[in-house]
Amino acid sequence: MEQDHLYTTHSDAASRVGAVIQHTVEELSRPTDIEQNMMPVSRGPLPSVEVVREIVDIVKTIVFPEFLDRLRGTRTMHEARLSVSIEKLFRLLSKEISHCVYEQNLGESTEQAAEEGMDKALSLIERLSEIKRLLYTDVQAIFDNDPAAENFGEVILSYPVVQAMVHYRLAHQLMLLKVPVLPRIITELAHSETGIDINPGATIGEYFAIDHGTGVVIGETCIIGNHVTLYQGVTLGAKNFTLDGEGHPVNVPRHPILEDHVTVYANATILGRITVGHDSIVGGNIWLTESVPPYSKIVQRCADCKGYESSK
Amino acid sequence: MEQDHLYTTHSDAASRVGAVIQHTVEELSRPTDIEQNMMPVSRGPLPSVEVVREIVDIVKTIVFPEFLDRLRGTRTMHEARLSVSIEKLFRLLSKEISHCVYEQNLGESTEQAAEEGMDKALSLIERLSEIKRLLYTDVQAIFDNDPAAENFGEVILSYPVVQAMVHYRLAHQLMLLKVPVLPRIITELAHSETGIDINPGATIGEYFAIDHGTGVVIGETCIIGNHVTLYQGVTLGAKNFTLDGEGHPVNVPRHPILEDHVTVYANATILGRITVGHDSIVGGNIWLTESVPPYSKIVQRCADCKGYESSK
Amino acid sequence: MEQDHLYTTHSDAASRVGAVIQHTVEELSRPTDIEQNMMPVSRGPLPSVEVVREIVDIVKTIVFPEFLDRLRGTRTMHEARLSVSIEKLFRLLSKEISHCVYEQNLGESTEQAAEEGMDKALSLIERLSEIKRLLYTDVQAIFDNDPAAENFGEVILSYPVVQAMVHYRLAHQLMLLKVPVLPRIITELAHSETGIDINPGATIGEYFAIDHGTGVVIGETCIIGNHVTLYQGVTLGAKNFTLDGEGHPVNVPRHPILEDHVTVYANATILGRITVGHDSIVGGNIWLTESVPPYSKIVQRCADCKGYESSK
Amino acid sequence: MEQDHLYTTHSDAASRVGAVIQHTVEELSRPTDIEQNMMPVSRGPLPSVEVVREIVDIVKTIVFPEFLDRLRGTRTMHEARLSVSIEKLFRLLSKEISHCVYEQNLGESTEQAAEEGMDKALSLIERLSEIKRLLYTDVQAIFDNDPAAENFGEVILSYPVVQAMVHYRLAHQLMLLKVPVLPRIITELAHSETGIDINPGATIGEYFAIDHGTGVVIGETCIIGNHVTLYQGVTLGAKNFTLDGEGHPVNVPRHPILEDHVTVYANATILGRITVGHDSIVGGNIWLTESVPPYSKIVQRCADCKGYESSK
Amino acid sequence: MEQDHLYTTHSDAASRVGAVIQHTVEELSRPTDIEQNMMPVSRGPLPSVEVVREIVDIVKTIVFPEFLDRLRGTRTMHEARLSVSIEKLFRLLSKEISHCVYEQNLGESTEQAAEEGMDKALSLIERLSEIKRLLYTDVQAIFDNDPAAENFGEVILSYPVVQAMVHYRLAHQLMLLKVPVLPRIITELAHSETGIDINPGATIGEYFAIDHGTGVVIGETCIIGNHVTLYQGVTLGAKNFTLDGEGHPVNVPRHPILEDHVTVYANATILGRITVGHDSIVGGNIWLTESVPPYSKIVQRCADCKGYESSK
Amino acid sequence: MEQDHLYTTHSDAASRVGAVIQHTVEELSRPTDIEQNMMPVSRGPLPSVEVVREIVDIVKTIVFPEFLDRLRGTRTMHEARLSVSIEKLFRLLSKEISHCVYEQNLGESTEQAAEEGMDKALSLIERLSEIKRLLYTDVQAIFDNDPAAENFGEVILSYPVVQAMVHYRLAHQLMLLKVPVLPRIITELAHSETGIDINPGATIGEYFAIDHGTGVVIGETCIIGNHVTLYQGVTLGAKNFTLDGEGHPVNVPRHPILEDHVTVYANATILGRITVGHDSIVGGNIWLTESVPPYSKIVQRCADCKGYESSK
Repeated sequence: MEQDHLYTTHSDAASRVGAVIQHTVEELSRPTDIEQNMMPVSRGPLPSVEVVREIVDIVKTIVFPEFLDRLRGTRTMHEARLSVSIEKLFRLLSKEISHCVYEQNLGESTEQAAEEGMDKALSLIERLSEIKRLLYTDVQAIFDNDPAAENFGEVILSYPVVQAMVHYRLAHQLMLLKVPVLPRIITELAHSETGIDINPGATIGEYFAIDHGTGVVIGETCIIGNHVTLYQGVTLGAKNFTLDGEGHPVNVPRHPILEDHVTVYANATILGRITVGHDSIVGGNIWLTESVPPYSKIVQRCADCKGYESSK
Repeated sequence: MEQDHLYTTHSDAASRVGAVIQHTVEELSRPTDIEQNMMPVSRGPLPSVEVVREIVDIVKTIVFPEFLDRLRGTRTMHEARLSVSIEKLFRLLSKEISHCVYEQNLGESTEQAAEEGMDKALSLIERLSEIKRLLYTDVQAIFDNDPAAENFGEVILSYPVVQAMVHYRLAHQLMLLKVPVLPRIITELAHSETGIDINPGATIGEYFAIDHGTGVVIGETCIIGNHVTLYQGVTLGAKNFTLDGEGHPVNVPRHPILEDHVTVYANATILGRITVGHDSIVGGNIWLTESVPPYSKIVQRCADCKGYESSK
Repeated sequence: MEQDHLYTTHSDAASRVGAVIQHTVEELSRPTDIEQNMMPVSRGPLPSVEVVREIVDIVKTIVFPEFLDRLRGTRTMHEARLSVSIEKLFRLLSKEISHCVYEQNLGESTEQAAEEGMDKALSLIERLSEIKRLLYTDVQAIFDNDPAAENFGEVILSYPVVQAMVHYRLAHQLMLLKVPVLPRIITELAHSETGIDINPGATIGEYFAIDHGTGVVIGETCIIGNHVTLYQGVTLGAKNFTLDGEGHPVNVPRHPILEDHVTVYANATILGRITVGHDSIVGGNIWLTESVPPYSKIVQRCADCKGYESSK
Repeated sequence: MEQDHLYTTHSDAASRVGAVIQHTVEELSRPTDIEQNMMPVSRGPLPSVEVVREIVDIVKTIVFPEFLDRLRGTRTMHEARLSVSIEKLFRLLSKEISHCVYEQNLGESTEQAAEEGMDKALSLIERLSEIKRLLYTDVQAIFDNDPAAENFGEVILSYPVVQAMVHYRLAHQLMLLKVPVLPRIITELAHSETGIDINPGATIGEYFAIDHGTGVVIGETCIIGNHVTLYQGVTLGAKNFTLDGEGHPVNVPRHPILEDHVTVYANATILGRITVGHDSIVGGNIWLTESVPPYSKIVQRCADCKGYESSK
Repeated sequence: MEQDHLYTTHSDAASRVGAVIQHTVEELSRPTDIEQNMMPVSRGPLPSVEVVREIVDIVKTIVFPEFLDRLRGTRTMHEARLSVSIEKLFRLLSKEISHCVYEQNLGESTEQAAEEGMDKALSLIERLSEIKRLLYTDVQAIFDNDPAAENFGEVILSYPVVQAMVHYRLAHQLMLLKVPVLPRIITELAHSETGIDINPGATIGEYFAIDHGTGVVIGETCIIGNHVTLYQGVTLGAKNFTLDGEGHPVNVPRHPILEDHVTVYANATILGRITVGHDSIVGGNIWLTESVPPYSKIVQRCADCKGYESSK
Repeated sequence: MEQDHLYTTHSDAASRVGAVIQHTVEELSRPTDIEQNMMPVSRGPLPSVEVVREIVDIVKTIVFPEFLDRLRGTRTMHEARLSVSIEKLFRLLSKEISHCVYEQNLGESTEQAAEEGMDKALSLIERLSEIKRLLYTDVQAIFDNDPAAENFGEVILSYPVVQAMVHYRLAHQLMLLKVPVLPRIITELAHSETGIDINPGATIGEYFAIDHGTGVVIGETCIIGNHVTLYQGVTLGAKNFTLDGEGHPVNVPRHPILEDHVTVYANATILGRITVGHDSIVGGNIWLTESVPPYSKIVQRCADCKGYESSK
C-alpha cells in the first residue's frame, strides 16, 4: 500500500533505514565550526513568520477597510470593527516585540521584556493614523502615475507596490521605536512577495510611487523626499563599505539622498551617499555615483546616438 | 501565562491600553484628505483575492489535467471531472464578475449585475478551449527554448512563466469581455508570484516564451506577434504620458509592437509605440526607442569594444 | 440568495448553462495538436507542489533548528526531534522520488521504482550534514556582506537568498543522485518565491552570497568557486545554443566559470562558457562575454566619463 | 505508488472500473419510487450544518463572553467585541433564514425572502438579552444541583446540558418567529452532540436543570415550568398519535405539562398530555401516564419491597 | 513570554524535565504484559478515522444529493457530479479495504491485498443504488412516524437516526463483502456521534425507523423485518454467552428476531435469540426474554395498577 | 450579490440594523442579576477546549502508538517519536494547568502558577506508564466481553468506551494531582462524545469494561474494584444530597462501592453509598439502593412472572 510499508515489513530494510537516520542525527547534532563561533546572543529563536504576516494583514485591514472588507454599516459598527482589529494587533504585536526584545537584550528579565513589548506596541498603535495618512498619499501617487489604473480599489487590492509600502511603513515605525529584528523580517517578507526590497531603516516621504517594481532595492540609509517616483529595477545602493576591525562592514550613511519630486526610470543604479537634487529626472539604465543639482535631467551620454548598432 | 494577562490584571495598564485604542479608533474613523476626495464609485469592496486564486487554479487544472491531477481513468470519468470543474468555475466566476460589475457600474441593479455576471462567465467558458490551445503553444515554445527542460510536465508544473501566462491568457479574455477590475487583479497576482508583470490589455500571439522571467514588464497597449521570445528583465514600456486636463495620464497606444519571430535578450528596454520588425533580435541591455525594420539585429554600439575596461 | 439559484430556478438559464458546459467539455476533451504529438513518456502526473514545499521546509528545520523552532531542551530531546523530522523527510522524499522515477523511466515496475526511491532518499539523508555545513557557510557569507544584518537569525529567517540556497543545495544533491524532474521543481519553487533562479545543475562552492537577489539567474552548467558574491540582477547565462537535429537546443557546457573570491555587482550580465579568474571584480551593468584573468577589475569603459549627460 | 495507479496502468482494470461507475451513475440518476412521490416543495436544499454550528457558537460567545474568551479589557473594548459578534450573527442568520423561507414558502420571490430573513434575524437579535438571562438561570440551576460542580465556568465550558440549552433557547425563539426548518436543525445538532433531544417547540421556564442528561427526550408540545430538574434518560413523550386522513400523525398537544419545582429522576417515562402538579417528585424508572396533583411524590409501587430477588 | 521559556532559561529545570521525559520514554517503550501476549496479527495499524468519516460523507452525498448540496443544474451536470463522487469513493474505499485486508490476512502480499481492495470496493459501488433505495424507505418511515417532522430535508439533514442508518447500511454491505474491521469502525463512529449502536452484522429490512434514538443497541445477530419501529433506549441484546475453551465468548446467533411491523417503545429490553411475531407491540420499559406470537401486545403486567405509589 | 449588500445600499435598513445592534449591545453589557452575584473567583476564562482535545489525543497516541499511527521502524525511531510526543504533551499540559491554577487560586502570582503548572505536568508524565498499563487492562476486558470484537485494534480505534476510559484515566490522575477544573472538562468532553459520563473523582480498578455504554453514569465518589463490567444505561448515582447552610449540596461520599468481579446489566440503577459485594451480578433494569453481600445475584423480583401481559 503505502511506501513506508515497504521498509516496515522487510526488517533488513527497516534496520538499514534506522541506522542511516541514527547516524545522520548524530552528525547533525555535532555543531559545525560556524555554529560554534556564533555568539549565543544571536542564536535565539525568532518571531514566527506566520504571526508577522497576520500582523501586516491586520494593519492593511485597519488602513484600507472599505477595500478589503465587504462589510458595511453604521459608523458605530465600523468603529467597533476597528477597535477589535486594533486590540488584536496590540496583542500580537506586544507578544512578538517582547519576544524579540527578550532574545536580543541579554540580561533583561521576561517581565521587563513584556513591559517593553506592551509599551512599544502601544506607541505603534498611536502612529497608525499617521501610517494610514502616508499610505493614502502613496496610493494616490501610484494611481496618478499609472494610465492603466482604473480606480483606487484595484491599486490597493492587487498592486505589489502597495503591499511593499504597507510592510515598509509599518516596519519603519517599529525601527524608530527601536524594536530589534522584527522590522527587517517585515520588509524581507515584502521582498519575497513583491521583489521590492526596501530596508526598514530608509526614510521615505509622502506620495511615494514605484511602478511595476520588481527588482527595486532601497538601502538602509537612503533619504527620499516627497513625490518621488521609481520604476522597476532601480537600485539605490552603497558604493563601498567601511570595514571595522573584524572585517565586518560598518553601518554608516552610505546610500543616496533623493530630494522632492525626483523620478528615476527603469534599471537605473544610483550608488553612494550622493544627493539627487529636487525635481531631477534620472533616465533608465543610468549608472549614477555623483551628486547632481536640482532640476537635473540625466540621460544617456550621447543624446544623438542610438546606443546600439543595427545590422539587418 | 499569556501576554494579555499582564494588562488585564493591572487595571492601570488595562485602562491605558483602552484609552490608546479608543483614541486611535477615533482618529482612524476620521477620513483623510485623500479619502474625502475619492469619488464614491471607486470605494466599492473588491473581489476576494482567495477566490481569484481559486479561479485561476481551476482554469489551470482544466487546461493541464494530466499534469496537475494524479487521477486517470476512462474518457467518461475524465469528462465528468471536467464538467464538475467547469461548473465550479462558472459559479465562482459569475459571482465575482457580478460583484465587480455592480460595484463599478453605478446605477445598475443587483439583478442586472447578476445577469451580466452569468453572461460573461458563460462567454469565458466558451473560450476555454481557445485559452487551452494558446497555452499549449506557449508551453511548446518555452520547452523548445530551454536546453535544461526535460519534459512538458516539469515546465507546466513549476516554471513561473507558465503560471504568469495562465493568469494573462485568462485575464486578457475577461478584458475582451469588458469585465471591470478583475483582469488586472488576476495579472497583478501573477506579478506578485512570479515577478512577471503583463498587463491584461496587452495582445500576445501564439508560441510566446519568456525565459527566467523575473522583472519582465509588458505594458497595456503592447501588441506581440507569434513566436516571440523574451528574457528576464525585458521592459516593453511607455516613453511618456499624455496627460488629461486633470493631470491624470491618458490611456492611449503607447507601448511597442513586436512582430512575429522577434527575440529580446535580458534587460533590454523597449519604449514607446514603436515597431520591432519581424525576425529581429534585440540584444541584452539595449535601450531602444525607435522602430526597426524586419530582420534587424540590434547589438551594443561598438561591436569590437568590450564595453568595459579591465584593470588587473 | 446565492448566484446559483438564479440559473437554477429559471429552467431556460439552467439548460443554457448546461449546454455551454457540455459543449466546452467536449471541445476540451479533444486533444490539441501539441498534445497529440507529445510522447507518452512526458505526460505522467508529477510531484505535488505542496509535498515538495513540505520537503524543503523540513530540510530547513533540520538545518537551522535553533532559528525556526522556539523549542529548547536537553540534547536527547533535541536528537529525538531531529530523528522524527528526518524520518518524515525520508517518507515524503522516498515517495516523491519513486513517483518521479516511475513516471520517467518507462518499463520499470512500481516495485523497482519504490526500491530506487528508498535508496536515493537514504543517500540524500546521508548528505544532510554536508548540506547543513555548506548552508552555514552561505549564511556566514551573506551576514558578512550586509552591514544592515544584525544577526544570523534574522538572515536565516527572512532573507530570500537563504530560502533560495536551501532549495538549491537540496536540489543539487538530488540532481547528483540522478533523481529526475524533482530537482528542477524544487529550484523553480524558489525562483517563484524569491526571484532568484538557480538551476539545480549549477555547481556552487562554499561561502556563496547573493545580496538583495531579485533577478539573479544562474545557468545549468555554471561552475562557481568559494567565497563568490553576486548582487541583484546578475545573469550568468548562455550566449547561444547548439541545436540538435530536431532543432531542440543541446545541453552542453555553455555558462560561465567563476573562480574563488569573485564579486559581481548589480545587473551585470556574464554570458557563455568563459572564465572569470579568481579575485576578480565585475562592476554593475557590465556585459561580459570573454574570459578575464585573475585579479581583474572590470569597470565601465570610460572611467572618467559619467556615462550620462546632465541637462539642467 | 498509490492505489489508483494499479487500475490505471492495467487498461482492463481501468475500463472495468469505468464501466461499473458509469452503470452506477445511471442507476442512481433514476429517482426511486419514494423520491418520485415527494412533493417538490420538500426537496429544496437546506441550511449548511457548518453555518448553523457557527451561528450557535457565536450566540454562546455573546452570552458567556467571560468564560469562552480569554480576552479582557475596558468596557468599550468589550462592547466593540459584542458589536462585531452580533453583526456577524446578523449576517449569517439573515442569510440562512432567507434561504429556509425561500425554499419552504413556494411562490415567494428571492427579494421577499431576503427581506423576511433580515426582519426575523433582527427580531432574534432583539431577544438575545432575554436568551442570555434565561441561560444564566439554567446555569445557576445546574450548578446548584451538582455537588461535583466547582464553579460556573466549568459548567458553562464543558457540561453537555449547557450546550443543549443554548441550542434549545435559540431554536425556540426562532420557532416563535416562525422560521421554518432551522429550529429543528439546531436542536437536532445538540441531540447528536449531547444525547439530549429537546424539540424546539417545547416551552421551558427559568432555572431548568438536567443532570447527566444522556437520553433525555422532551417532546414538541411539552410545557415545563420554572425550577424543574430532570435526570438522565427521562422521557417526556406522547402516548399515541392522532392520524390524519393520509395516515400521517397530526401535530396536536400530546406531551406532558410539568408545573414549577418538579423533579424527575433517572429513566422515568412520562407520556401523554397529562399534568404533573407543582412541587412533585417523580422517582427513577417510573412509567407515568396520568396526571398527578401538586406536591405528589411518585415512587415504586411497593415501598417495602426491594424490587428484586437476591440469590446468593 | 511562553511557558517553555521557563524551563529553557533555567538549566536546572530543563535538565529535570529532560530526565523525566527520558525515563518515561524508557518505561513506555517496555511492552506491558498484555501487549506481550497479543498475537502479532492483531497489532496492525488500522484505517484512519478521518478517511472513514470522509467515505461515509461521500456516500451520504451520493444518496441524498438534493438535500446536502445546494447545487442544481441539468441532468448531465448532475451525472458528472455523481461520477466524480463515486470515483473518489472508489479510490478511498479500495485503499482502506486493501489496508484492512493486508493487516488482517497474514501471508497475503500487498499486490493481492490491493487487488482484493479494488474488487470489494467495486462490488460496494454496484450496491450503492440498493443502499440508496433502502435509505429512502427509512427516511419515509422516520418521517411518517414523527408528527414534528415538517419535510424530508429536515429529517435527512439533521436527524441522528438517519446518520446512524447511512453508517449501518454501508457497513452492513461491507460486512457481506467480508471486509474485515472496517464495518465495525463505521458503525462505532455512528455510535459515538448519535448514541445509536447498531452492529454491522445485524440484518435490517426496509422502512426501519428509530425515534429519538439515544441509547438504542442492536446486536450482531439480530434479524429485523420490514416496517419495524424502535424508540430511544431500546436494547436488542444477548442473554448470555457461550464461551470457548479459552474463555472468550463464541459468536453464535444470540440476539432477537423482530418480524415485520413490530413496534418497540422506549427503554424496552429484548434479550436472547427469541422471536417477536409480526405486527406485535412491545411497551416501554418492558424486559422481554421469551418469544411472543404475531399480533402480541406486550404491556406492563398489571394493566390496572399505576406502577407507582403517590404520596402527597 | 450577498445579503449584506441589501442592508448596505438602502440606508434606512442599514441604520435600523445599526440601531438594533447598538441597543442589544447595551442590554447585553449590563450584567444580569446572576452575573452580579457570582463571586469573581468563578469568572476566570477557562482552558481552551481545542487544547484539551489535543492533550487527550496525544495521550492516546502515546499509549496506543501501534494502533493509531501507521508508522513503524526501529526501536530508536519509536523512542524518538515518543519523546517528541511527551515533550509536546508537557508543554500543552503545563500551560493549561498553570492557567487553571492561576484562575482558581486567587492571590497566586503568574510565576507561582507557572511553576506549579510545570510540576504537576511533570508528575502526570511520570504516571503515563501506569495510565498505559491500566488502559491495556481495560482494552483486554472490553475485548474479552464482546463476542463481536475481532481484535484489539478495532476496539482501540473505534469503541467509544475506550475513548471514555482514556479521558477518565487521564483526568483521574490530574484530579489526584489537585489540578483544578481541567479534570472535569476532560471527562465532560468524553461525556459529549460518547454518552458515557464518568466523574474524574471516581476510583476505578483494573480490567474495567463497559459494553455499548451510552447513558452510563458513574458518580464522583464511586469506588469500583477490579474486573468490573457495566452495560449501557447503568447509573451509579447518589440517593440524596446533604445540603450546606446556603442550600448548596455538600460533596460527601454518596455513590456506590462495587467490589471486584461485579457485573451490572443494562439500565440498572444503583444509588447511594452502598456496597455491592464482590462477584455479584445485578440484572438489567434493577433499582438497587441497599448493600448486597458477595456472590449476590440480583434479578427481577418474580422469577416466574414475565413482567408483562401479552394481549394478542
